[in-house]
Amino acid sequence: MHKVKFLPDGNEVEVDDGTTIMEAAEKAGVFINSLCGGKGVCGKCRVQVSDGKVKADKHSIGFLSKDEVKDGYVLACQSKVDDNLEIVIPPESRLEAEQIVMEQPVVDYSQPEKVAVARVPSDPMTLFEPLVQKIFLELKEPSQEDNISDIERIIRELRKRTDYQSFETTLCCLQGLASNLRDNDWKVTATIAKHGDLWRILQIEPGDASNKNYGLAIDVGTTTVVAQLVDMKSGNVIGVAGSHNLQSHYGEDVISRMVFACGRERGLNPLHEAVIKNINNLIKTLTDEKGIDVEDITAVVAAGNTTMSHLLLSLIPCSIRFDPYVPTANIFPQIRARQVGININPEGVLETIADVASYVGGDIVAGILACGIADRPETGILIDVGTNGEIAIGNNDWMVCCSASAGPAFEGGGIKNGMRATRGAIERIIINNGEVKYTTIGKAKPRGICGSGLIDCIYEFARNGIIDHDGKFSLSTKNKRLIEKDGKAQFIVAHSQETENGEDLTISESDIGNLIRSKGAVFAAIKSLMDYVGLKFEDIETFFVAGGFGSYLDIPKAIGIGLLPDIDPKRIQFIGNSSLMGARIALLSSHGFERTIKIANSMTNIELSTYQPFMDEYVAAMFLPHTDRRLFPSVDY
Amino acid sequence: MHKVKFLPDGNEVEVDDGTTIMEAAEKAGVFINSLCGGKGVCGKCRVQVSDGKVKADKHSIGFLSKDEVKDGYVLACQSKVDDNLEIVIPPESRLEAEQIVMEQPVVDYSQPEKVAVARVPSDPMTLFEPLVQKIFLELKEPSQEDNISDIERIIRELRKRTDYQSFETTLCCLQGLASNLRDNDWKVTATIAKHGDLWRILQIEPGDASNKNYGLAIDVGTTTVVAQLVDMKSGNVIGVAGSHNLQSHYGEDVISRMVFACGRERGLNPLHEAVIKNINNLIKTLTDEKGIDVEDITAVVAAGNTTMSHLLLSLIPCSIRFDPYVPTANIFPQIRARQVGININPEGVLETIADVASYVGGDIVAGILACGIADRPETGILIDVGTNGEIAIGNNDWMVCCSASAGPAFEGGGIKNGMRATRGAIERIIINNGEVKYTTIGKAKPRGICGSGLIDCIYEFARNGIIDHDGKFSLSTKNKRLIEKDGKAQFIVAHSQETENGEDLTISESDIGNLIRSKGAVFAAIKSLMDYVGLKFEDIETFFVAGGFGSYLDIPKAIGIGLLPDIDPKRIQFIGNSSLMGARIALLSSHGFERTIKIANSMTNIELSTYQPFMDEYVAAMFLPHTDRRLFPSVDY
Repeated sequence: MHKVKFLPDGNEVEVDDGTTIMEAAEKAGVFINSLCGGKGVCGKCRVQVSDGKVKADKHSIGFLSKDEVKDGYVLACQSKVDDNLEIVIPPESRLEAEQIVMEQPVVDYSQPEKVAVARVPSDPMTLFEPLVQKIFLELKEPSQEDNISDIERIIRELRKRTDYQSFETTLCCLQGLASNLRDNDWKVTATIAKHGDLWRILQIEPGDASNKNYGLAIDVGTTTVVAQLVDMKSGNVIGVAGSHNLQSHYGEDVISRMVFACGRERGLNPLHEAVIKNINNLIKTLTDEKGIDVEDITAVVAAGNTTMSHLLLSLIPCSIRFDPYVPTANIFPQIRARQVGININPEGVLETIADVASYVGGDIVAGILACGIADRPETGILIDVGTNGEIAIGNNDWMVCCSASAGPAFEGGGIKNGMRATRGAIERIIINNGEVKYTTIGKAKPRGICGSGLIDCIYEFARNGIIDHDGKFSLSTKNKRLIEKDGKAQFIVAHSQETENGEDLTISESDIGNLIRSKGAVFAAIKSLMDYVGLKFEDIETFFVAGGFGSYLDIPKAIGIGLLPDIDPKRIQFIGNSSLMGARIALLSSHGFERTIKIANSMTNIELSTYQPFMDEYVAAMFLPHTDRRLFPSVDY
Repeated sequence: MHKVKFLPDGNEVEVDDGTTIMEAAEKAGVFINSLCGGKGVCGKCRVQVSDGKVKADKHSIGFLSKDEVKDGYVLACQSKVDDNLEIVIPPESRLEAEQIVMEQPVVDYSQPEKVAVARVPSDPMTLFEPLVQKIFLELKEPSQEDNISDIERIIRELRKRTDYQSFETTLCCLQGLASNLRDNDWKVTATIAKHGDLWRILQIEPGDASNKNYGLAIDVGTTTVVAQLVDMKSGNVIGVAGSHNLQSHYGEDVISRMVFACGRERGLNPLHEAVIKNINNLIKTLTDEKGIDVEDITAVVAAGNTTMSHLLLSLIPCSIRFDPYVPTANIFPQIRARQVGININPEGVLETIADVASYVGGDIVAGILACGIADRPETGILIDVGTNGEIAIGNNDWMVCCSASAGPAFEGGGIKNGMRATRGAIERIIINNGEVKYTTIGKAKPRGICGSGLIDCIYEFARNGIIDHDGKFSLSTKNKRLIEKDGKAQFIVAHSQETENGEDLTISESDIGNLIRSKGAVFAAIKSLMDYVGLKFEDIETFFVAGGFGSYLDIPKAIGIGLLPDIDPKRIQFIGNSSLMGARIALLSSHGFERTIKIANSMTNIELSTYQPFMDEYVAAMFLPHTDRRLFPSVDY
């Protein structure tokens, strides 16, 4: 056994000889970046050995410069513990949880107690009917003339007190009921949960407990897991918490998670347990903070992509990955949350928002519910840009969707200095007269550039003539920030004296190429879906843009690089975490929840990977802003 | 610690000082008779101490004669272990399981594999649709053109293969499904269970497992628990087993069980666990005997009186006992049988037949289903005679029922030499010219007289003028069997040289009085219910008589003593364990099961304890055959 101490946090752990540093970090509860899931092929998990010796080979120093190797850097996933160690995790290898993408900008979390149900077009407040409700009942004592059974007495009163007629009992609500009623002067609180067409009586509590009813809306993202704690009586959001998905230890994106789940025996279990641990940690944080008993949480609605839904419920995700892309299920049963280990009331329910297909998940379905396009006659679009770009078009009559592999560029992946929208990420950039101005998340020293910053970058490069329409640095550029390093042309966004790690933050031509491929894939997907349904951009009432770009997406700049179509920016609305918003609406409105199933069932999914028009559009979109400039008349660089 | 050995079985157990012999017997798995539940007031649990010393006081020797005390007899419930002991359980204190009342005479168990669904008027074979079914599916492999989710593929095929449209999934059927399908060439067996209006998919098994689907019909009687193992594919009964209800340790009748459950802390648990142990023992017996895997048992339907239903599901039965007689529930939810510890397939379901009221239980509802009176326009009656006599009258349009406390006489209780219909019980008696002929169950030496034997006795006494119409021994009788013992007139049914314990088997005037009170209560209940609905006996098409009289009830003699109304005996059918039969019909016919809920919901229960006409009828019925002889024109003694 060796001791391994991780800096800067100081967490220490004892591990066996031969354990990788990555595994030791996992055990210590320390996050290390990993895009490839421990295969040694992404180079994102570099750490510095400040004390002790590791068992290193050539794989341990892949992707590292000679200077880095000299300074003791190794890849955490490829280096084995052979000694007591002290490991420094450099800023760029840290996964931090300071800033998790929440709903934007609909809800103001600075006054969470005043935040009612989302103020979005679908306006679920008009349909306020939480999935689980607590109803205080003052019952008439039985008499010879009125000696129906205890549970019938409760159901009779529930019928009077609600509009609901059909109730279903559970063993739990019956066990102990006789004493519960008689010891509490026939005053009890019934917890009822919508279950299909019925209301199921989950439990009977003594006295009036109707004020203690909480629910959780959870966005189970590939990267982050975000939970809102909701007062189910008022509909108010009373707390929100997020964390990085602990599954990241096993791979950064859904593909590497699936590879892990399917590649080894029982690989599914660690992934399932990781996300459950995430959720339970968030529950603990929220309940501790608000002084709430977990027993009073009676419902969870979770939305995630198809792989995340499967891993949440411990369903085998392996066939999602391969042609013909078949998931185990798209519609999930209501279960007791405890069945998968979620630590709420033992009878509390878990609803998982329905998926559409292997690559259009419940996060999109929840997003559609949130933005309300399935409720209105006007046609709308929802675009959710992550590693996959998912696009849905439709109205209350029809819905079509697709998914395009956009690559991880907008989440900072595949970009040397790219990073997620967390503390220290450059999120806005303006270049005027060769001078660069930027702002970072948390006003920290720059550590990298997140999605919105990268979009700004490309746009500002193009507008200032720093790059040409094909994304190559313009030979005529005389900007002093344009340097050559490691034999490649690079543009210094932040100088070494400004950055956290004391190195220049640069963007290379290959970074720009990755971003153009990403934006091209998203635009091509939008365009070919539009063509498929025979509509033009002007036919669309509102474009909703969701995703993890950061807290701020500059829409004109996103149009400027050809990511979004060239329409009036007022018709484009950035809504941040629409998956979370939709999950909350479903939690607070059983009609909303039912609508998610209808959306998932009625949506037509177009498989782009075998759809030739998409290929053509993709090639055409590999230009700034586009090969066909007529599509972007307002772009003037 | 002391060793206690029980004879004749030889079971041995170690117990602490101060444990009662009854408790020790329970621990050793040895049955000792107990009517009062260990209160020392029934005297039924006498045992002989053949070696060692017990801590005995005056309570230990209550009910015992001087000779018995001299021979070392004590009451097991009142005597504490103080030494290593050897205890002989005399025949009359044993509870034996040789002969459990099964369905009579509808089904011939000598060829169980040929026994189809009950051949009773309701003819459920026309509605054969087991509550749980296994359906073998050969699925089309997914393709790009047909890439619905795995579970949708299964549901699509189930819709084709059955008439059912609505299916519900469970977490269990989804977990592992993807591998299950792909590893088995898309050939799997789905287990589906009727759940309300839907069919719930419980599990998916590899390959064709449709031949391995078994169900259990269980009659949870206060005295005995009987289970039938049914092949759910063919509907055939393939095995049957019964045992005494282990709850007998805590009291013989429902009242003493309720007293036990409600009198001490956690008294409910031992009673619940006892009946679950009963059921699991029967399951083990049946599956061992037939070489069946318990995992292949997917459904249980249990019928019992209201108290038994409550104890089965671990519901508090305490308010059943007192005015206004309110149970926790009459309609029970479908649950997983494992939720209450029943050892079948973990996803297998338990349906508990609905009760009507506190003293008209699921056993009667099942009985009504079995005899089919709720399915026909003609009015019928079902009478179930146990400690309580339950009576239901009606047809497919209406149903009325009541319950009368008949006392335990017909089950051998309150009768000095009365016993249940087990081995050694005299079940038929004929007296001609002062000579007694009798037959016993199992052709064993007489140990006592069971219900049918007691009815014969009274009838033969009356017919031969041995007793008068008021049940007193006739002063003119010169039968040499009429003797005086302990200052009381007694009639010797079997002489000491014929009996197992070597003592005369006698019937006293007080025994006859108890039997007259019992038959009077039953007849009065029938008569007042008839009057309540305004019908005469001739309006009734068929009288179904169920109950634990033994394997044979002589119907003309039952009429002869005024227990049953004086109608053509052909219209009276003895159907034995109709509760078990009804449970099996419900198991094999979801329509039948649904009908039990309708029966329970639509039945009007008349509370006789506060119904004056019943009191008047009861007084009038305390005569042989009846005070109003015009009601029994065919009775000629």
